[in-house]
Amino acid sequence: MQSQFTEANTHDIDQIMQLSFAAYEAYQSQTCQQKAVFLDEIATQIDILGDDLINLASSETNLPYPRLKGERDRTTSGLRMFADMLREGSWVDASIDTTQPDRLPMAKPDIRKMLFPLGPIVVFGASNFPFAYSTAGGDTASALAAGCSVVVKAHPAHAQTSEMVFGAIKTAIEICEMPEHIFMHLHSSSFDVGKALVQHPATAAVGFTGSYIGGKALFDYSAERKHPIPVFSEMGSVNPVLFLPETLKENAAQLATQFSASITGSMGQFCTNPGVMIGIDSAELDHFLDLLCAEVNQVLPAKMLHQGIYNSFNTHREKALNQSDVVLITDENHPTQNLEAMPSIATVSGIEFLENPVLHEEIFGPYSLMVICQNKTELIAVWKALTGQLTTTLIGTDVDFENHLDLILLAKTIAGRVIFNGVPTGVEVCASMVHGGPMPATTDGRFTAVGINSVKRWVRPVCFQNCPQHLLPLALQDDNVDGIWRMVNGKMER
Amino acid sequence: MQSQFTEANTHDIDQIMQLSFAAYEAYQSQTCQQKAVFLDEIATQIDILGDDLINLASSETNLPYPRLKGERDRTTSGLRMFADMLREGSWVDASIDTTQPDRLPMAKPDIRKMLFPLGPIVVFGASNFPFAYSTAGGDTASALAAGCSVVVKAHPAHAQTSEMVFGAIKTAIEICEMPEHIFMHLHSSSFDVGKALVQHPATAAVGFTGSYIGGKALFDYSAERKHPIPVFSEMGSVNPVLFLPETLKENAAQLATQFSASITGSMGQFCTNPGVMIGIDSAELDHFLDLLCAEVNQVLPAKMLHQGIYNSFNTHREKALNQSDVVLITDENHPTQNLEAMPSIATVSGIEFLENPVLHEEIFGPYSLMVICQNKTELIAVWKALTGQLTTTLIGTDVDFENHLDLILLAKTIAGRVIFNGVPTGVEVCASMVHGGPMPATTDGRFTAVGINSVKRWVRPVCFQNCPQHLLPLALQDDNVDGIWRMVNGKMER
Repeated sequence: MQSQFTEANTHDIDQIMQLSFAAYEAYQSQTCQQKAVFLDEIATQIDILGDDLINLASSETNLPYPRLKGERDRTTSGLRMFADMLREGSWVDASIDTTQPDRLPMAKPDIRKMLFPLGPIVVFGASNFPFAYSTAGGDTASALAAGCSVVVKAHPAHAQTSEMVFGAIKTAIEICEMPEHIFMHLHSSSFDVGKALVQHPATAAVGFTGSYIGGKALFDYSAERKHPIPVFSEMGSVNPVLFLPETLKENAAQLATQFSASITGSMGQFCTNPGVMIGIDSAELDHFLDLLCAEVNQVLPAKMLHQGIYNSFNTHREKALNQSDVVLITDENHPTQNLEAMPSIATVSGIEFLENPVLHEEIFGPYSLMVICQNKTELIAVWKALTGQLTTTLIGTDVDFENHLDLILLAKTIAGRVIFNGVPTGVEVCASMVHGGPMPATTDGRFTAVGINSVKRWVRPVCFQNCPQHLLPLALQDDNVDGIWRMVNGKMER
Repeated sequence: MQSQFTEANTHDIDQIMQLSFAAYEAYQSQTCQQKAVFLDEIATQIDILGDDLINLASSETNLPYPRLKGERDRTTSGLRMFADMLREGSWVDASIDTTQPDRLPMAKPDIRKMLFPLGPIVVFGASNFPFAYSTAGGDTASALAAGCSVVVKAHPAHAQTSEMVFGAIKTAIEICEMPEHIFMHLHSSSFDVGKALVQHPATAAVGFTGSYIGGKALFDYSAERKHPIPVFSEMGSVNPVLFLPETLKENAAQLATQFSASITGSMGQFCTNPGVMIGIDSAELDHFLDLLCAEVNQVLPAKMLHQGIYNSFNTHREKALNQSDVVLITDENHPTQNLEAMPSIATVSGIEFLENPVLHEEIFGPYSLMVICQNKTELIAVWKALTGQLTTTLIGTDVDFENHLDLILLAKTIAGRVIFNGVPTGVEVCASMVHGGPMPATTDGRFTAVGINSVKRWVRPVCFQNCPQHLLPLALQDDNVDGIWRMVNGKMER
């Protein structure tokens, strides 16, 4: 895809990253309160764009107005959430151990620690979230909150939307008198430009949401650097869902409605889409599948985000359906037009699934595969074969869970989020959210991409030893003027 | 170096890692209280070894008894510190966001997050800390506390010491009825064995303390994996020390004594050894150097850890002294015998230092280079050329610091720890300590290798969504029986 904007080339990258680094240095003199005002102002400026922005995004992405309005609101809420976090102040993880001058055999020094920003962050816009994981989305908001500068490479599939959001950020920079280059924006569809961004010496870390191939390539570019940097790629996931026996007897109809919506909503273009379901062969499972198909058959095909994603969906879906023992169980009775994806459910036996790694791959779109196991042992084997997931879901009654306590222990080794009796789509933005998971779900399962803890991706701790009080950052001075939570001599206090 | 013990080969590694993984799974059923008792018991068993252990370590490492006794005590204190951390319980970083069933447009789910262990951890023993960074050292203690299993590759330079400590751990495993293979121990001097350990699919993370070449190789082995894993290599550092003008007028004699001891203590075999000093050309700096040389000239050469480190010290020292403009300013008037290092101070001009990357490299041993700058601009340029340090130190009076506030801001971008008017050697074990720093000081500057926060290297967060109360881990249940600190709906409480 080629946008109508000037494409950056690899020669531009050096200048862009140098400007970004200078802006990062200048940004350090801004207080947390000033940065909070700045983030709020970005949100305000995006709100001011109103329906023009949403309609433009809809025309570029084929996503419907209500979905995009919700995503826009989530994006501005995210900016305001980080502004609140900065005002509250405890996020810097301050810790103080005071001196003991008389300790033997030697005096205990005064040591004080807090988090500081890494430097310029390169963010790659995501095609499936033109607001929430793109220009002013979660990566940008958390990085600016951390005190980093940001360079966004717009996703070419919504380049105009990205440019319009960039305009809002520029206005906020001017109003708040922030360093001009604290946020920079470029267009490119070239792999070389992505590589140059990741490998520039001034780049301190990378945020990416998208395919495994794309995310792993960025990770590998970093590993090639003289000094590798953190790369946070949030990549593919099939988000396995376990259907336990008892619940299928009692709740089949409700589950069918719920999962049809989760599999086909936004044409399945979510990283938390339930792409693999797992159950044990039974009449109840057959019944559930009948009800699920009846629901999915009623979902009309709709346009996917762009030609590339549409082609990829069809190619991967066809490939999967051509594998041994895989059976398509939904109808194909809706005529589809350009870019329209056909919602689909297929089945396969546990044995075949275990033997065929093709079936373990994510098919990004409205598709889910029910793996029908002969027994619990096979179900566990199938589940374990799918390590490294953003989410895994357990559907069961109290009796089911009592009968399968071992599965609950195992669940946490597989994913970053374990859902009970719900759908994996819909990622709540809160402090306890973990939107992450072991490789290959992400390149760094120790961090979350959603919620205030996502700021932790862009910082590192530094401690000061015997630093004179007045030279310490405010957060580490004795009088704690901002009243933040701190660990002082091993105890939390403020 | 070849030890007298059977060397593991690459074929053994698969079995070792599989046993370690099974032990990790079994260890999950132990409570934090039980793990605490286990860590305490390891400390007790090491104490029981008494002087036999210290004398053996001294014979293997050439380190003197008092130093090793202190290190042994630090090691057992570390084990007990992690036991206390487990008993207190807040380290799991629990966070709870409760449900809001009436929220519009959709119910807010109940989300609860805490930290869980990654899996089997491979630890490479360090030659310069036979206790504190070896068999039962900080990496092992923190990994066992986190709930991981541990596989230690003993350092061949103190294989017998490592074996004796392993015996203490084995006894503790038996007494506490822990899984037999929760801790495994092997001997090898082969790179292939190290590579096989890092690249085994069951290995979840790696801890290493040693040279840049060794640590970076482990990082690269991980990057070659299908699913790379966290590698925490704590590597080289020259720990630059800035001497500001006023303090040299007032405190030269005291500083000379302090830095002579820091440069030559344990024959400079510390990763925090001050290998580069930086000052501005002046009569006061010359005077300080005279005093420093007088002190260092009185330090008798002593044996280094082993032949390899001794050879490396001499090679690198000779290479440095042969560089243009480098002048040795200490005497070489002590006769040296086998393995004995000659304590040395050299000088070079700022301009030469900036142009010659050879001079930026760590020389592991009792050596420090004073870089004499023409002015403050050059001093900053020299300092910035040394990014990625474990520590950096500022030596100055109040007037000096007032005159150089910009240096204080810059210091935190260079290192993990910033010391004021002290020496970088001596790493206090406390919650606020950051023993880490940007590449190339470590492979992951976001974590510390010392203090209770070092446990964070071996865990990742998992959240539970709408999980029935009684199925949640104790730390996330409403009634908080252990009274740990938790973030509940955005507020810290217990």
